[in-house]
Amino acid sequence: MTAFDALGHLLGPRFSTTLAARKQNAGNEAHYDEVLPDAVAFPESTEEVAEIVRICAAHGVPIVAFGTGTSLEGQHLAVNGGISLDFSRMDKVLEVHAEDMNVVVQPGVTRKQLNEELRATGLFFPVDPGADASLGGMAATRASGTTAVRYGTMRENVLALEAVMADGSVIRTGSEARKSSAGYDLTHLLVGSEGTLGLITELTLKLHGQPEAVAAATCRFDDVAAAVDCVILTIQSGIPMARIELVDEMMVRGFNLHSGTTMPEKPHLFLEFHGAPDAVREQVSSFREIASDAGAQGWQEAETTEARTALWSLRHGALPAIGALDPRPGKRTYSTDVCVPISQLAEAIAAARAEAETRALTCTIVGHVGDGNFHCGLRFDPADPAEIAEVLAFSGALAKVALRLGGTVTGEHGIGLGKQGYMDAEHGAAVAIMRRVKTAFDPQAILNPGKLLPPES
Amino acid sequence: MTAFDALGHLLGPRFSTTLAARKQNAGNEAHYDEVLPDAVAFPESTEEVAEIVRICAAHGVPIVAFGTGTSLEGQHLAVNGGISLDFSRMDKVLEVHAEDMNVVVQPGVTRKQLNEELRATGLFFPVDPGADASLGGMAATRASGTTAVRYGTMRENVLALEAVMADGSVIRTGSEARKSSAGYDLTHLLVGSEGTLGLITELTLKLHGQPEAVAAATCRFDDVAAAVDCVILTIQSGIPMARIELVDEMMVRGFNLHSGTTMPEKPHLFLEFHGAPDAVREQVSSFREIASDAGAQGWQEAETTEARTALWSLRHGALPAIGALDPRPGKRTYSTDVCVPISQLAEAIAAARAEAETRALTCTIVGHVGDGNFHCGLRFDPADPAEIAEVLAFSGALAKVALRLGGTVTGEHGIGLGKQGYMDAEHGAAVAIMRRVKTAFDPQAILNPGKLLPPES
Ligand SMILES: Cc1cc2nc3c(=O)[nH]c(=O)nc-3n(C[C@H](O)[C@H](O)[C@H](O)COP(=O)(O)OP(=O)(O)OC[C@H]3O[C@@H](n4cnc5c(N)ncnc54)[C@H](O)[C@@H]3O)c2cc1C
Ligand SMILES: Cc1cc2nc3c(=O)[nH]c(=O)nc-3n(C[C@H](O)[C@H](O)[C@H](O)COP(=O)(O)OP(=O)(O)OC[C@H]3O[C@@H](n4cnc5c(N)ncnc54)[C@H](O)[C@@H]3O)c2cc1C
Repeated sequence: MTAFDALGHLLGPRFSTTLAARKQNAGNEAHYDEVLPDAVAFPESTEEVAEIVRICAAHGVPIVAFGTGTSLEGQHLAVNGGISLDFSRMDKVLEVHAEDMNVVVQPGVTRKQLNEELRATGLFFPVDPGADASLGGMAATRASGTTAVRYGTMRENVLALEAVMADGSVIRTGSEARKSSAGYDLTHLLVGSEGTLGLITELTLKLHGQPEAVAAATCRFDDVAAAVDCVILTIQSGIPMARIELVDEMMVRGFNLHSGTTMPEKPHLFLEFHGAPDAVREQVSSFREIASDAGAQGWQEAETTEARTALWSLRHGALPAIGALDPRPGKRTYSTDVCVPISQLAEAIAAARAEAETRALTCTIVGHVGDGNFHCGLRFDPADPAEIAEVLAFSGALAKVALRLGGTVTGEHGIGLGKQGYMDAEHGAAVAIMRRVKTAFDPQAILNPGKLLPPES
Repeated sequence: MTAFDALGHLLGPRFSTTLAARKQNAGNEAHYDEVLPDAVAFPESTEEVAEIVRICAAHGVPIVAFGTGTSLEGQHLAVNGGISLDFSRMDKVLEVHAEDMNVVVQPGVTRKQLNEELRATGLFFPVDPGADASLGGMAATRASGTTAVRYGTMRENVLALEAVMADGSVIRTGSEARKSSAGYDLTHLLVGSEGTLGLITELTLKLHGQPEAVAAATCRFDDVAAAVDCVILTIQSGIPMARIELVDEMMVRGFNLHSGTTMPEKPHLFLEFHGAPDAVREQVSSFREIASDAGAQGWQEAETTEARTALWSLRHGALPAIGALDPRPGKRTYSTDVCVPISQLAEAIAAARAEAETRALTCTIVGHVGDGNFHCGLRFDPADPAEIAEVLAFSGALAKVALRLGGTVTGEHGIGLGKQGYMDAEHGAAVAIMRRVKTAFDPQAILNPGKLLPPES
């Protein structure tokens, strides 16, 4: 029996080799070409995942986990063929432990779905990458987003995992206890491993209390340097910002074009404060003092829940809004992210802008700047090799800047296909150790081959 | 040339096989017998550590890292012979990055030394296991302590590491950036690995702003159940407690005997609140409301810095104070810790007390209860096999309780020698993966052999 026969036998109609099914998991929201997997499998249980892995292992068939396919470095693309293991049918919230502020979910649950289901509990799951990604995919890419400055990334919010190993064995890592010193931290090894070490089949996630009071606001600055200075001082002063997002003037122009807003085309900060009522008032007033010293203008508070939602949908619409800046048909957006120590943020952003200007690229800068993390969005023509080369050269230059300033080549989008070339520069001798870890977990290299680690030279 | 000749050649008088030197690293503050290493090495640089490892690897000599020797599960004892690699001469604070709120230290720096050196910066390092442990040892055991409920454990506060691998290669993990999605998280794999995967030669640690306002207080309850209820409600209500420590009536008696205090012999909570002034006032008043509903009495605020210091030295003197409860000469204290989901804390503590009563053991309970973590301190006679057996049986029963309630067999003291027997029960199939990790890092098994992983059966 071939592997595909066995998988068909196991899953029936939930295993498909049709072009339609394959095409659904072949695309991406970034700049990579479509890559068709050989087949798609839709397991409904951990046992099925384990059996799929055993079958694939026996036949040497690559397995590429698929959450919602929103990753931006091609992580979910089956570049070495094999099956796309699609978690969309494992989408149950299994247990809400309100008293312990945690939740047990299947990996295909998306973050919006989770927060919908939690609404009545007074609790929420904070990690917010904008896209409605799956929690399995978010764990696998160590995702973060606008609220990480306050609530942490997936690294801080995954308590425990269940995962299927490359030989089909099923392990559990971590527990519901908030901390443990019992052995090697396999949870954090799987978080961020991009499906190359194991398949996450269940997650126990930390929840947080819905804040008693929330304030959200925007303000603008004459230039990015002033906005960044304000951010640095705010973080250093210890104000526990829930969100502090930079949106540069080019991005504001994109918002205005895309959403019909009429914001002054200046760098803005988008802000949110969480806490008990007095604490929020105190935070807002401390922030406003720092901001006005830094030259902030146009303080606009979003007074209602609706206004707040509008503010954050605007921010989360950055990717399509970049398109509005250069709407020639066929163009795409290249999105790259780096993260630096906060003291280096102004320099990193200035370097990014200079690099874009030199190369005459349309470049927006938005960022989770409270973490020192920012994104550059560049429009380019995928049919034009010169434009592709220019965009990649920009990204390489930015990666170098981030490393020179003591940072990392990716704060949240991950390595996938696109950033393998910087692994040696960032990690040096540690790459050899990462290879040993990969071999220890997946000696046959069937789990998402061709990702995260650069080819051995 | 023998390994010891080569080490003597490398280190001169900083390599010693004298009984006096060996004896210094042979003891422990827990219940383990003294174990003499064959020799002690005192490196002063990463290069020396790497060279020591290369020599030991070539000769198959075990290497047991030694910080300050305060670990409680025998982690630092050279049970398979070899050298004790003592980091006490690598005790420099290398760089303070106040603007980025981090610090780069050598592993032999102790936490008190670090906070002393940071005093003028307005920043502090929060992880506080009571003992003045080394930061390398604290990372290696994934230590935490009284402030973890607010500031996290070593897991959350180590940003980056330099480490020497078992083959003498030197790697760097992580960076000064607050987050990264670039590859496998080797930092968190080394944190908590008890010197079995690599030797930490440099740490970059997160710092926190010294709180603008601090309030500390104690209050008491009629019984432990009421105190624990108060803790659970406090955590669930989202009050960002800086410290919330349970001290049971037996422990209070110990304090009174040991320190001459005259506290009512009732369960107490020891509390600390950090934040901006209004926020602290708000926290205190919210807490007091919850506490008084739970039956708290005798609210005592520590108004001055001195009073606060006295309060926490009393708490941190728990280990010697247990001794006062049963001062027969030659007796020792067995200290064990477990951690459970907070909703299970009352049940776990009740089970511990019942278990101690059944066995007629003198048992104190203190705990970092905001994390669901507590410690039992038991007096026993190390010369009496029956008493030893009783104490170990208690610990085994408590470990079982913790696992039944969804927790972990150790929240912070680690596995070392003492808790290997519970690794299979806690981790199941994941133990096999941990073994593969160990082999990938240290194929010769020269790094702290005999620790953390149970012997293969
Ligand atoms: C508009 C937009 C905005 C974005 N903003 C952010 C942002 O602010 N912050 C951020 O961090 N990211 C951001 N991203 C990137 C993306 O949302 C994240 O990388 C997300 O975590 C991907 O989740 P997914 O479910 O789509 O995973 P996929 O793309 O399906 O998969 C991602 C990787 O995880 C693996 N994987 C998926 N599920 C599992 C599993 N169960 N077990 C093991 N491996 C698995 C896949 O094999 C793949 O390697 C953005 C993307 C878009 C399109
Ligand atoms: C009174 C008292 C109270 C305590 N309270 C707490 C508490 O509240 N919370 C808590 O977490 N712990 C507590 N402990 C335990 C102890 O303080 C911690 O385990 C501490 O982290 C040990 O640090 P150390 O420097 O003494 O390490 P050591 O005991 O010297 O070594 C511990 C382990 O780490 C390894 N190691 C040491 N340095 C390195 C290095 N540089 N690289 C690699 N491996 C290394 C050693 O090989 C060993 O396996 C307490 C201990 C005492 C005596």
